[in-house]
Amino acid sequence: MQRCTTTEVTGHAGQRVRLAGWLHHQRHLARVAFLLVRDGWGITQVVVDDAGLRARTADLSPETVVEVEGLVVLSDQAPGGVELHDPEVRVVSTPEVAPPFELRRPQLDARLPTLLDNAALALRHPTRRATARVAAASVAGFRRALDELGFTEVHTPKIVATATETGADLFELDYFGTPAFLAQSPQLYKQVMVGALERVYEVGPVFRAEPHATARHLAQYTSLDAELGFVRDHADVMAVVREAVAGMVAEVAARAAPAVDLLAIELPDVPPEIPAVHFADAQRLIEASTGEAVVGEPDLAPAHERWLGDWARREHGSDLLFVVGYPMAKRPFYTHPDPDRPGFSNSFDLLFRGVELVTGGQRLHRYDDYLAALGGTDLAPLDGYLAAFRHGMPPHGGFALGLERWVARLCGAANVREVTLFPRDMTRLAP
Amino acid sequence: MQRCTTTEVTGHAGQRVRLAGWLHHQRHLARVAFLLVRDGWGITQVVVDDAGLRARTADLSPETVVEVEGLVVLSDQAPGGVELHDPEVRVVSTPEVAPPFELRRPQLDARLPTLLDNAALALRHPTRRATARVAAASVAGFRRALDELGFTEVHTPKIVATATETGADLFELDYFGTPAFLAQSPQLYKQVMVGALERVYEVGPVFRAEPHATARHLAQYTSLDAELGFVRDHADVMAVVREAVAGMVAEVAARAAPAVDLLAIELPDVPPEIPAVHFADAQRLIEASTGEAVVGEPDLAPAHERWLGDWARREHGSDLLFVVGYPMAKRPFYTHPDPDRPGFSNSFDLLFRGVELVTGGQRLHRYDDYLAALGGTDLAPLDGYLAAFRHGMPPHGGFALGLERWVARLCGAANVREVTLFPRDMTRLAP
Repeated sequence: MQRCTTTEVTGHAGQRVRLAGWLHHQRHLARVAFLLVRDGWGITQVVVDDAGLRARTADLSPETVVEVEGLVVLSDQAPGGVELHDPEVRVVSTPEVAPPFELRRPQLDARLPTLLDNAALALRHPTRRATARVAAASVAGFRRALDELGFTEVHTPKIVATATETGADLFELDYFGTPAFLAQSPQLYKQVMVGALERVYEVGPVFRAEPHATARHLAQYTSLDAELGFVRDHADVMAVVREAVAGMVAEVAARAAPAVDLLAIELPDVPPEIPAVHFADAQRLIEASTGEAVVGEPDLAPAHERWLGDWARREHGSDLLFVVGYPMAKRPFYTHPDPDRPGFSNSFDLLFRGVELVTGGQRLHRYDDYLAALGGTDLAPLDGYLAAFRHGMPPHGGFALGLERWVARLCGAANVREVTLFPRDMTRLAP
Repeated sequence: MQRCTTTEVTGHAGQRVRLAGWLHHQRHLARVAFLLVRDGWGITQVVVDDAGLRARTADLSPETVVEVEGLVVLSDQAPGGVELHDPEVRVVSTPEVAPPFELRRPQLDARLPTLLDNAALALRHPTRRATARVAAASVAGFRRALDELGFTEVHTPKIVATATETGADLFELDYFGTPAFLAQSPQLYKQVMVGALERVYEVGPVFRAEPHATARHLAQYTSLDAELGFVRDHADVMAVVREAVAGMVAEVAARAAPAVDLLAIELPDVPPEIPAVHFADAQRLIEASTGEAVVGEPDLAPAHERWLGDWARREHGSDLLFVVGYPMAKRPFYTHPDPDRPGFSNSFDLLFRGVELVTGGQRLHRYDDYLAALGGTDLAPLDGYLAAFRHGMPPHGGFALGLERWVARLCGAANVREVTLFPRDMTRLAP
């Protein structure tokens, strides 16, 4: 008999089917037992009347791997409206130990470090795997939106000879006897690829040796990067960001609907044009409202981003807000200045519900501008990058979006580690 | 005027359009000049009659970034059957140096190290970017096929505490003062994820400190990995491999048709069932044919794989051949033995035109089997992995496919470096 998943059972009412999965939980009453069988997609209740089978299953511990054949019966009382009657149960494999926490509860009832230490078990919980499916659907939506805009996916080196962002936070490794680093971003490579393919994106790991333990930083995270040529300025990049985020939301709705329901996710509306505020205006708004002296500071603090998130919701009814024109002082060397406003740049961040989600902007494209911006830096390790500009590059720009941060904000997780399968940070190298 | 790409020009016959791109080449005759403008997708010829414009463009060096407005005229003589007349040309940005090799030739005329040293330029050549588009389409096809089979995409750690494959070939790094390694594969993580999501795949970088310089090994490559639960044995995994490869071929045909044409790629037929030969039978065939004493050896040499590739084409008319049942001796610790044939395993390789493309098989799933297989190994760094088996795991299996090797074989490239954007090997850490 062909296996049927728990989510397909409803379509087989009146037939016998074969399920396979894990014993999620069981309840034994006086004359009947209920086994909950969880597979990779859902949970189905199995009703055991037979006394012999009840006796044989009573001692099975949670997470026993089982195969169950039974008759599909629609029932309003059953979870999901369907259950299996008259079952046969075969044990496929038996756990060696009792779980340190119960998967059967609607929410995992253990502290985050315990859950992360026991990832192999915790990730089996319906809420945890729902966040994994939201992440997968988000990435699929990102790719789909960019594919439709003529972008090509690329895969670039993660072992590099030089910093791609500011010099700090680099992991160093031994590369056949030479010191090398893990790439902090695909920035330099995606810019080079604009010269070849014009529009590129990459979904891949980036590495930051973050010396601080915060709820929103990881030592490895998944960066959704894009870069495109022949832009007028950063506004053209922002238009692509809008399409990418809209694609992510649409694909989460389409592919991960059960996860959205289970996690009670409220998907954001992505307006045709996401509201935008200039950095300097944002600072004035914050200062006028909070009394804090923020005007003239080179960056926004997380508290200020939260304030702007509330403001965007209040003033524009939007979960998304572009902050545009950050001061050059705090942006990386490849940032294109605002030609009309000295000290400010053609760059932006996108805030999602008050958290920085995307960073992007227009880049320098003239070789001489790079020489000026890099004055004093050793250019040798950057030579393969600067070659792109020596050989002629158009105005271009791009952006990067942190996947875990997006999923965390979407799912209302307080810590990115809750939505990362196997997080890496200062204190965590395993599992 | 909205920009139009070189591949869209034909649809605008009789209209004026604006192109943007790089000056690929120009030819000046007595009364007319031909400028070839290359953008991210193709090349369009621009016909310059005006004497003033001919004079102003004559000195433009190749790779000058230009915008050209002109009238679209269909013409059998023009490359691609279309050209721009009566143009206006605006220079956007000027190269600083002359290219060290010419991009205008149908084939790049320089040695591989020169091309790799000058990747920012070489990747602009139509053949090189065609291979990039074949790679992107292949990955899209892999994902699409697995999405349709109910797989979920995951992203797993690339910084790990222990070897995932045999102990050699590890890059070591300093992880906040602790020694750590770059992951040689997502193997351990994808197995753990079978416990949660049942069917997972990952497309990401893997790292091998290969001490040898060969034409088919890289220090970083892109691995297409999949793993699935509740298999009967490796045959269920091979069925998924078949779908994945068929999906890759279909998507290359659909998404990268211009690249397929340009590179004269012959796409393989993927039969409903890919022919398979047992490892021991393969050795007997090779020995009978070549006279070499190979029966009893624990693995196949590249020359033997080539022989089998020819044999599969001759006997089965197939570019693809599964070799099944490799001896346990040469397979990793998680390999499931063949229960009916001592010394052999439930594993396989897929050869594509005589080159190993995929490795896969059924894995052990019982905790005690792992303890036996790992006898003598320090289990502490593997604890988070072994936890999955302690908590109950079903029979499962999976496979890994090397993207660069696939693209190289498809495009007829002798060296994987020819189809890798920025290859990493013993001697190459940049660009």
